[in-house]
Amino acid sequence: MSKQSSSKMLKEIFEQPKVLAYTLAESEDELTASVQLFKAKQPRYVVVNARGTSSHAALYAKYLLEHYLHVPVAFGAPSLFTLYDTGADYSDALVITISQSGASEDLLALLEAAKRKGAAVLAVTNTSTSPLARAAEVTLLTRAGKERAVAATKTFTTQLLLLASLVSRLAGARKLQQALAAIPEAVESTLSLADEIAEKAERYRYMTHCAMLGRGYNLATAYEAALKLTECAYVVSQGFSLATFEHGPKALATQGFPLFLYAAKGAAYQQAYEAAGRYRAQGAEVFAIADCARLVQRAGLGVKLPVKVREELSPIPLIVVGQLLAYNIAVTKGHNPDAPRLLNKVTITR
Amino acid sequence: MSKQSSSKMLKEIFEQPKVLAYTLAESEDELTASVQLFKAKQPRYVVVNARGTSSHAALYAKYLLEHYLHVPVAFGAPSLFTLYDTGADYSDALVITISQSGASEDLLALLEAAKRKGAAVLAVTNTSTSPLARAAEVTLLTRAGKERAVAATKTFTTQLLLLASLVSRLAGARKLQQALAAIPEAVESTLSLADEIAEKAERYRYMTHCAMLGRGYNLATAYEAALKLTECAYVVSQGFSLATFEHGPKALATQGFPLFLYAAKGAAYQQAYEAAGRYRAQGAEVFAIADCARLVQRAGLGVKLPVKVREELSPIPLIVVGQLLAYNIAVTKGHNPDAPRLLNKVTITR
Repeated sequence: MSKQSSSKMLKEIFEQPKVLAYTLAESEDELTASVQLFKAKQPRYVVVNARGTSSHAALYAKYLLEHYLHVPVAFGAPSLFTLYDTGADYSDALVITISQSGASEDLLALLEAAKRKGAAVLAVTNTSTSPLARAAEVTLLTRAGKERAVAATKTFTTQLLLLASLVSRLAGARKLQQALAAIPEAVESTLSLADEIAEKAERYRYMTHCAMLGRGYNLATAYEAALKLTECAYVVSQGFSLATFEHGPKALATQGFPLFLYAAKGAAYQQAYEAAGRYRAQGAEVFAIADCARLVQRAGLGVKLPVKVREELSPIPLIVVGQLLAYNIAVTKGHNPDAPRLLNKVTITR
Repeated sequence: MSKQSSSKMLKEIFEQPKVLAYTLAESEDELTASVQLFKAKQPRYVVVNARGTSSHAALYAKYLLEHYLHVPVAFGAPSLFTLYDTGADYSDALVITISQSGASEDLLALLEAAKRKGAAVLAVTNTSTSPLARAAEVTLLTRAGKERAVAATKTFTTQLLLLASLVSRLAGARKLQQALAAIPEAVESTLSLADEIAEKAERYRYMTHCAMLGRGYNLATAYEAALKLTECAYVVSQGFSLATFEHGPKALATQGFPLFLYAAKGAAYQQAYEAAGRYRAQGAEVFAIADCARLVQRAGLGVKLPVKVREELSPIPLIVVGQLLAYNIAVTKGHNPDAPRLLNKVTITR
């Protein structure tokens, strides 16, 4: 990372092994308290309350919670609490609010309304003194250090890590819990791809739009990779589930249209493999970000992770590739990814 | 519609006043049965199960159900039932499956799993003999007639109408219920804009990408308008809530970037009005689809509905404008909107 090391975003991407390890090591008590909150409430369902990058961590949590605990997860609709007179009655719920800054007013409005009704309230934030952390009963802190780049990177992967750690404990999923320990090293290995990704990013100098595909656990990865590229490189980049893409948007997938496909070995792999072949045969250009060479070969373009992790945890190393792609495509296009135009680090919506 | 009247899609757009009136008139018994199913189950939460256009009707239903009945609404994650071993336990739920064809296998897998657990199961479909209709306890039929164009139009607006009718009955919201009677005529008036919309569509001959914005009830409108444009005209068109757009994607909104903004007078209006001015000042080009001249003037470009309806019902006439825009932009670009490349009428995903 020598020649670009003055970039805040790149520096924070490279900090991830360290802050992931630190967050894992230091969150023991908070995870115990979160498990207790969950078990005391016995929620009928979970509500996730988040915006932007954090909403992709919320989507990841939805798959984990529904798959491992079989507890349904609903996204909150904050506008019903800020613009309309009232929204859903969340008295049966555990509400998980996820926010790097912990400052967004609409998320707080939903959280406070849920609390008044008797919901249990958990926050996941990087800012221990934030309004959301103060309002929550228990806070899981991402210990990512201050994030200076506008585009969230290290606060996202630490959110995923904490959410996976929480669910593994709630479900007594020992293998998943054990696998978490290897994540900082997996991210370290992934960062060794930085030069390769920088070279491959050049191809996209003139790309103005694209689609990003994933399914299951890696749907969140596709959404987050799309948002990174949009905000850093001003590429209109939309994330889709492989199934949703089939219901209309696949009409785009021809004549060299760029598709980025995020997948890992596991339950959703076969569909991704078939999709790569199908869309390529239709004329689309497919770039696969995957943990196996077979899918990258099938796609024709891509990046193979140098490491294998469980499918449930694969979004963490895979999104590191997505972050590096977004960073390098922005640089290749002559933009400064540290300061996306019009954006501030803290976005407060109502 | 003289010169384009051989188009199936345009014909079906124009059939909407008639099929909306017919669906409203003929669904009395099914609505009564749906209300009974709901009241017998007393669901702790509702699960919506849908793909593509129907998932936008599901999002609309989420706002109605959370706002009027305060019952939380979660989107189903069908992949957990088809690719993974199992998903959420929906025993406390009423599951509403929405599908034009009623044929998608992943939706059926979720529905069947929920039913085995004891969930109440309602279907909204245009196909009374479909697997989803057969599997549901009660079916609300959109009586739109066979939809021959690949892009769903009349089956979407009749879905919205039935869902609003159901919620108005469940909530005893008499004003909302009464307002439904005026919807077919409101759509008829909206169709009088067809020539104006065809002229305005020419501007977008060379547009390759854009964003569509809405909030509250009209978030679903923005999503659906974006999908129509994507599938008919191959424009990469992404829907965003006004709040989500602020959390990153607004970096796009400069240098003539095309934004389409859907809004009606009501709780979400002021935010839309402010956004139109703000994004225009940043250099974006804003096209407003709204029920008042003030917002269209503020945006600088747009279409004003010739009729006012309650905000909760405004997505129906507003999406008719979105359908006509998608149709005409496709035609202007030389595409045949009746036969989007690579798409079939019935999409079955697993």
